Amino acid sequence: MRSSKNYVYFFSADGSKGNANMKDILGGKGANLAEMCNLGIPVPPGFTISTEACLEFYKNNSTFSKELKEGVEKSVKEVEKVIGRGFGDAKNPLLLSVRSGARVSMPGMMDTVLNLGLNDEITEGLSQLSGNPRFAWDSYRRFIQMYGDVVLGLKGGDYETDPFEEIIENKKNMLGIENDIDLKTGDLQSIVVDFKKAIQRRGKKFPENPIDQLWGAIGAVFNSWNNERAIKYRKVNNIPHDWGTAVTVQAMVYGNMGNDSATGVAFTRNPSTGENKFYGEYLINAQGEDVVAGIRTPQPINKANKKNKDDVTLDSVMPNAYMQLVEIRNTLENHYRDMQDIEFTIEKGKLYMLQTRTGKRTSEAALRIAVEMVSEGKINQDEAILRVLPDQLEQLLHPKFDDKASREVVAHGLPASPGAATGKVVFSAKEAEKWVEDGEKVILVRIETSPEDIGGMNAAEGILTARGGMTSHAAVVARGMGKCCVAGCKDIAIMYSAKQFRVGKKIVEEGDWISLDGGTGEVIIGKVPTVMPEISGNLSKLLTWSDRVKRLEVRTNADTPHDASKAREFGAKGIGLCRTEHMFFNDNRIKVVREMIMSDDDHSRKVAIEKLLSMQIEDFVEIFEAMEGLPVTIRTIDPPLHEFLPNRSELNDRLSSMKMNLKKAKNLNDIDLMLKDINKDQAVLDKVDALTEINPMLGLRGCRLGILFPELTEMQAKAIFEAAYECKRKGIHAKPEIMIPLVSCPGELEDQKAIVEKAAKAVMDRHVVEIEYKIGTMIELPRAALIADQLSKTLDFFSFGTNDLTQTTMGLSRDDAGRFLPLYLEKGIFPADPFRKIDVEGVGSLVEMAVKKARATHADMELGVCGEHGGDPSSVEFFHKIGLDYVSCSPFRVPVARLAAAQVALKERSKELKKMEMVLDEVK
Amino acid sequence: MRSSKNYVYFFSADGSKGNANMKDILGGKGANLAEMCNLGIPVPPGFTISTEACLEFYKNNSTFSKELKEGVEKSVKEVEKVIGRGFGDAKNPLLLSVRSGARVSMPGMMDTVLNLGLNDEITEGLSQLSGNPRFAWDSYRRFIQMYGDVVLGLKGGDYETDPFEEIIENKKNMLGIENDIDLKTGDLQSIVVDFKKAIQRRGKKFPENPIDQLWGAIGAVFNSWNNERAIKYRKVNNIPHDWGTAVTVQAMVYGNMGNDSATGVAFTRNPSTGENKFYGEYLINAQGEDVVAGIRTPQPINKANKKNKDDVTLDSVMPNAYMQLVEIRNTLENHYRDMQDIEFTIEKGKLYMLQTRTGKRTSEAALRIAVEMVSEGKINQDEAILRVLPDQLEQLLHPKFDDKASREVVAHGLPASPGAATGKVVFSAKEAEKWVEDGEKVILVRIETSPEDIGGMNAAEGILTARGGMTSHAAVVARGMGKCCVAGCKDIAIMYSAKQFRVGKKIVEEGDWISLDGGTGEVIIGKVPTVMPEISGNLSKLLTWSDRVKRLEVRTNADTPHDASKAREFGAKGIGLCRTEHMFFNDNRIKVVREMIMSDDDHSRKVAIEKLLSMQIEDFVEIFEAMEGLPVTIRTIDPPLHEFLPNRSELNDRLSSMKMNLKKAKNLNDIDLMLKDINKDQAVLDKVDALTEINPMLGLRGCRLGILFPELTEMQAKAIFEAAYECKRKGIHAKPEIMIPLVSCPGELEDQKAIVEKAAKAVMDRHVVEIEYKIGTMIELPRAALIADQLSKTLDFFSFGTNDLTQTTMGLSRDDAGRFLPLYLEKGIFPADPFRKIDVEGVGSLVEMAVKKARATHADMELGVCGEHGGDPSSVEFFHKIGLDYVSCSPFRVPVARLAAAQVALKERSKELKKMEMVLDEVK
Repeated sequence: MRSSKNYVYFFSADGSKGNANMKDILGGKGANLAEMCNLGIPVPPGFTISTEACLEFYKNNSTFSKELKEGVEKSVKEVEKVIGRGFGDAKNPLLLSVRSGARVSMPGMMDTVLNLGLNDEITEGLSQLSGNPRFAWDSYRRFIQMYGDVVLGLKGGDYETDPFEEIIENKKNMLGIENDIDLKTGDLQSIVVDFKKAIQRRGKKFPENPIDQLWGAIGAVFNSWNNERAIKYRKVNNIPHDWGTAVTVQAMVYGNMGNDSATGVAFTRNPSTGENKFYGEYLINAQGEDVVAGIRTPQPINKANKKNKDDVTLDSVMPNAYMQLVEIRNTLENHYRDMQDIEFTIEKGKLYMLQTRTGKRTSEAALRIAVEMVSEGKINQDEAILRVLPDQLEQLLHPKFDDKASREVVAHGLPASPGAATGKVVFSAKEAEKWVEDGEKVILVRIETSPEDIGGMNAAEGILTARGGMTSHAAVVARGMGKCCVAGCKDIAIMYSAKQFRVGKKIVEEGDWISLDGGTGEVIIGKVPTVMPEISGNLSKLLTWSDRVKRLEVRTNADTPHDASKAREFGAKGIGLCRTEHMFFNDNRIKVVREMIMSDDDHSRKVAIEKLLSMQIEDFVEIFEAMEGLPVTIRTIDPPLHEFLPNRSELNDRLSSMKMNLKKAKNLNDIDLMLKDINKDQAVLDKVDALTEINPMLGLRGCRLGILFPELTEMQAKAIFEAAYECKRKGIHAKPEIMIPLVSCPGELEDQKAIVEKAAKAVMDRHVVEIEYKIGTMIELPRAALIADQLSKTLDFFSFGTNDLTQTTMGLSRDDAGRFLPLYLEKGIFPADPFRKIDVEGVGSLVEMAVKKARATHADMELGVCGEHGGDPSSVEFFHKIGLDYVSCSPFRVPVARLAAAQVALKERSKELKKMEMVLDEVK
Repeated sequence: MRSSKNYVYFFSADGSKGNANMKDILGGKGANLAEMCNLGIPVPPGFTISTEACLEFYKNNSTFSKELKEGVEKSVKEVEKVIGRGFGDAKNPLLLSVRSGARVSMPGMMDTVLNLGLNDEITEGLSQLSGNPRFAWDSYRRFIQMYGDVVLGLKGGDYETDPFEEIIENKKNMLGIENDIDLKTGDLQSIVVDFKKAIQRRGKKFPENPIDQLWGAIGAVFNSWNNERAIKYRKVNNIPHDWGTAVTVQAMVYGNMGNDSATGVAFTRNPSTGENKFYGEYLINAQGEDVVAGIRTPQPINKANKKNKDDVTLDSVMPNAYMQLVEIRNTLENHYRDMQDIEFTIEKGKLYMLQTRTGKRTSEAALRIAVEMVSEGKINQDEAILRVLPDQLEQLLHPKFDDKASREVVAHGLPASPGAATGKVVFSAKEAEKWVEDGEKVILVRIETSPEDIGGMNAAEGILTARGGMTSHAAVVARGMGKCCVAGCKDIAIMYSAKQFRVGKKIVEEGDWISLDGGTGEVIIGKVPTVMPEISGNLSKLLTWSDRVKRLEVRTNADTPHDASKAREFGAKGIGLCRTEHMFFNDNRIKVVREMIMSDDDHSRKVAIEKLLSMQIEDFVEIFEAMEGLPVTIRTIDPPLHEFLPNRSELNDRLSSMKMNLKKAKNLNDIDLMLKDINKDQAVLDKVDALTEINPMLGLRGCRLGILFPELTEMQAKAIFEAAYECKRKGIHAKPEIMIPLVSCPGELEDQKAIVEKAAKAVMDRHVVEIEYKIGTMIELPRAALIADQLSKTLDFFSFGTNDLTQTTMGLSRDDAGRFLPLYLEKGIFPADPFRKIDVEGVGSLVEMAVKKARATHADMELGVCGEHGGDPSSVEFFHKIGLDYVSCSPFRVPVARLAAAQVALKERSKELKKMEMVLDEVK
């Protein structure tokens, strides 16, 4: 449709040269305006200058080519013809808007000039034509102000203050008035004079000739692609800098020409609920910006959306225009096959559409619209899958605060784990458990949490920490539990001894009610009522469709039967990571674990381990039952042993006070008992000190523990196989996959594998039974990825532990990164938190390398990922592309991963189709 | 020379079928015996069964092939002919030895059978022939015992005790005698009877037929290649298991046939000093094993080696045999062109050579022999370079304990930094400095050291720590200082409060003398006199030759002008790593550094930084002066800030005691002052707590500090350029290379590079001067290696920080690995300590990948390594192969690296020559 040198695309109600597929050269706005014209929808005439012209402009040192000049001037004439007014004609003036438009929306980043085409003389003409001098002079005033800012650069940059606002302020002070609206025509005229003086004082000139104005505005909009905020925005959003912007020039229409005029915005469906009802607001006798500015309250467009009895709806005051609007709504939805966000203006009874674009919507609405559009026959299931953002799903699965309730927000932390929680403040895990036993609801408030706190975290409604990032212990565990958590809330100062925290000047005591919003990071004083999410059948429909198209399997990270069942409900096809040590933390067991650690000789260690054995068998039986028939990947013990011992400073405090009491004691028996206690605690303290490491993350943990204490691995393997046998007896199919953590070389594997295999054989021989099992390792050290071909030879599976792999590959402790990570993100040094989105270039390249090496030596090796990234959509996409078999994530993220996996599969398929088409084209 | 089915290589004084180049099939021993025969040197006749026969034997299920049987029997006949005795001939018996012999020496790992060919009847014949019945029966007794052990397997394995030793012990108890030598012929005869009974009781049979004995022995020696200890030895020494062993069968000769017989061992030069003098010991009328057993004191072979007046030298008692031996010595040295270790026996006046091999030697001897052989024209310079082990050089550069002095060794730690040190025990760095100021020599004893201790470490003669490995802080810093250090000595229990340490039952108090041997890890009670090493001109000769052939440049890691000068003396061609923060630790500066860290506002921080600036300028001027004309790589601040703050527990203790004093204070003024102190310390303690990290290695350090506190990088850059300018003014050529640490992505580099470049420009503009400089980064995170192509684009150099790269790639904290690394090495899970020898497969592959990526985008990029591995010979070899430009190591390791770099260059050249020859051969 366009000649090679055609940079200008005209559009009008009679049709246009562009269309919606030409966003690359016309920008989103221009392409959609052209499309509406093609659909016969009334749009004020105009034209779009292509991004190619923009790039040409940059190349030619900010000059306009002859072709462009001719094209624009020709198109202006066409606009004049359609609208029946003349650009620069003082009698019957055509005014234009000049707007930017990139391929993708960059809201507010680039510049716009409205009311272009006015000078003193033409303003007079407009004044007469409209019969509204104030409207004319106010438009002129606005135009000069915008032009002075955007084109002449009088605001910002070297100027510290805005000269135009200064003039208006002075004028209002002089007149003793407060609002712009109170300025009279005369005032506006004198302001215009002052504006022009201000421009002159700065050595600039306001062009009186409309054509000069137009070229000035076009150049300014071109240049606004390269202003600082636009560049920064593109950096953050990964938008290429060499796209350039289109410019749309369009006849101005006015909704403020009287009571037969109006302006409004609408959505083709309800953007909040997704309900298939036309939804929108409008104002009589107003301009678009008035709707936004909120000076008058907009009214609903139709009776269906009426909130108050005295609302005046458009369908009642302008039934014809409304009927036309409804028709356009239907046309647009049928055409775009998605909910649209539209802007319209009614000028003296005539309806004009100014914009249409895909409408933003809530999670709930996104889901409902996608699924309903399938049953309406508008889109197919694949399209529906691509219409919902995976992250939106998660929001649907947590309880949330009632939006209608008021909240006293006193602090903001990181939205570490979504959900809404209300409870009484407690400051220790122990207290949390105790209070909950007594029937209270509590919020656990800690400076930071440790594995010791698991019980209390589980008991609490929500967790609030003063330190730690999105992947701190509290955040990770809370997400795993699907529990609301606000982490790293620096505004609160916790004083454990006083059992209170301070926030600003407020003191919050133990037992006070607070509420946490895990989705926003808000900390709220008092109770806020919550509402349970409505999980309508739409969600399960969408996920069922997703499962049909995805290639990646989705498992869950779960350490308890409860989590396992919940995850299975959410569609998990097995457990990808069961952290056995989490089972060690409840009250009975931690004692035995400590016995084991404190034992000085092999015998007493063995006794303790024997006790743990029977407990672990029970654990595994329950988990196998919950996951019947599905694989359960169990990691052998991983964390440094000191994590199982009591907190050092608490221990120390207790010791000190016991010693004080000892001094006061008089009874010999008492003294004896006290001494015993002191010695016991002292021994524990000594052990804590002995086990303390400078960098525990890189210390004695993972398979290193199992190599130093083979009896630990042996016990765990035995428990797994005994549990599998127990299940078999009951007719339950258990599928254990044993995973050795933190392996860096084949020797470690051989050592631990031999122990597991021996235990397996012993159990099978004893019960004369076959138990199916797999052995694999976690790839969580760069070295393991680098020698993956060596490791894969003798194993059944790899699971990528991308949390630790990120820590080691980037040299970044997730517990300590909080002090500089925010600055890194702010400065754009890291594009995203690498603990949330997989670092494709670094960590990802290691994973990819390992996948290739593993498949080269062992083609049908099972490959999965069990780091936090398994629940992040963009990471899931990456894992799909490099050919993993599954991702594993926390139960609440399972639906997210299922949807994300389906989306990437669909995208890949459509890419392949395109490729095939291209090949066919070439063949032809 | 051998037919395809010939497995047996005969040798005698008349020549042989084998030669010294056939070690692969004849083993070291057999090949050298053949070679001696070819040289016309008298050797008892015999033959060697090839390793091929051994492998054939394994393949055929431990049976001997027909060819082998025929070959052996034919060769036995030839031996009979040469020696004039008959194998199995009771009248004139030929006895044989059967020995193993692998390609490379595996001392004591495989089996040997001596005196083979005896039975009751033949023993009688030998008795008459020798006229020495006791000799004959003792030989027979020994043979049965050896045969019973080696061939019949009566010792070890399932038998808990040695049945033969039991019989001898019983006999001696019965006779009431103590030594074997006191057993009479009759006793030996009855022992032989008992031996045979013992064999029968175990269901075995002693073969009376000599030919059966021979085949039994050959099979047993073959099998001994696969005994447990041999397999383990090969594993540890990386010797392939499929080589197999050769077997050498040789006529027995006897040095114990009377006073005209003798046996001895000799070295063609002095193995201790390297002096070119024939050196050896012998015994009249004795067998080889008697020299080793030490029952009689061996005598020197010549007057030149006489130690006591009444020594009876071989040249005086058997001048002819000695003259012949001297001739053989010359022949062998001229032939082998290296110092030889030889064994000989004189049987009734006739000299036989039993072995020759390259002799082991001390570091001193190795150097002297290599250099002197060049001046003697025996070898060329390249060969001399390959004759000295790089590690040996380091030993030559440290003072050592007088070997003659006695030492009371009470504990062993890791030999962390070589040298010998004697001093009084102190337990804190402060005390060390104080005592040394008072003129004392001290040994600093700490549980572990921290950067705070640098001053004390520098003052001390040596450092002893209870914790930490070969690359712990103490070890690394001590090696850097060339200071003796024994680290990780678990045997000692330090009690700081009591100012003492316990080792076993001994208490060592502050002020007691102890000595440390950094070469062996010995901790010695009391003083041990030291000797200064003799650095003769040979060392500098060898290193000058090395420099001519090496391709790798050698720099040094040095933080002070003193270290820099020392390293330059040792041949360093620049500084590869100058850790600026080490300059922060002396008493004046640490105060300012703490001021900086403690400052709450930008202003006070800037004031503190300004103070540091002038200090750093001085530092750099001195270092530039010391390294005039050579590059100096300066790393910007790297360690976590809390390392600069006082130790937490000391601070806490002080606070507690101040608070106690406060309670007692009455004077208001005093109370005011005390409160001030308390508040100050409390603030420091709070800061320490705030800065404490869970994994400091992966925390706020490296460029992350410079990004969070840009003023730090700015100050350091300014100091560097001001210092360079200062030097320029004085006519000194400074070549700074500024290195940004811990980079993981381009954004970090951009940030820090901009600061450095701005500072450079500012200084140059101010002084109107050009300063030449480079900017680079340290590759010490896996991610940096993975994206090296991105980082290299804008940089002048990379330096691989292989210490941290090893920590992150393997997930291994060098401070914490001590608890499992020893077990890993013992179990062979790691082939070597990865902090000493670079882990080629893991860490090395990352370095290699980064080198390729860097060169691909930036061909002439300067690439070096500054980790500890830069001073390890095998690592240097790797760095050469992957094409680095330089290695940088601690000053004392510079000569080591120079030699290692030369050796790998030579090896590479010879490989290339071989390849060229092969190509030429193919062309022909």
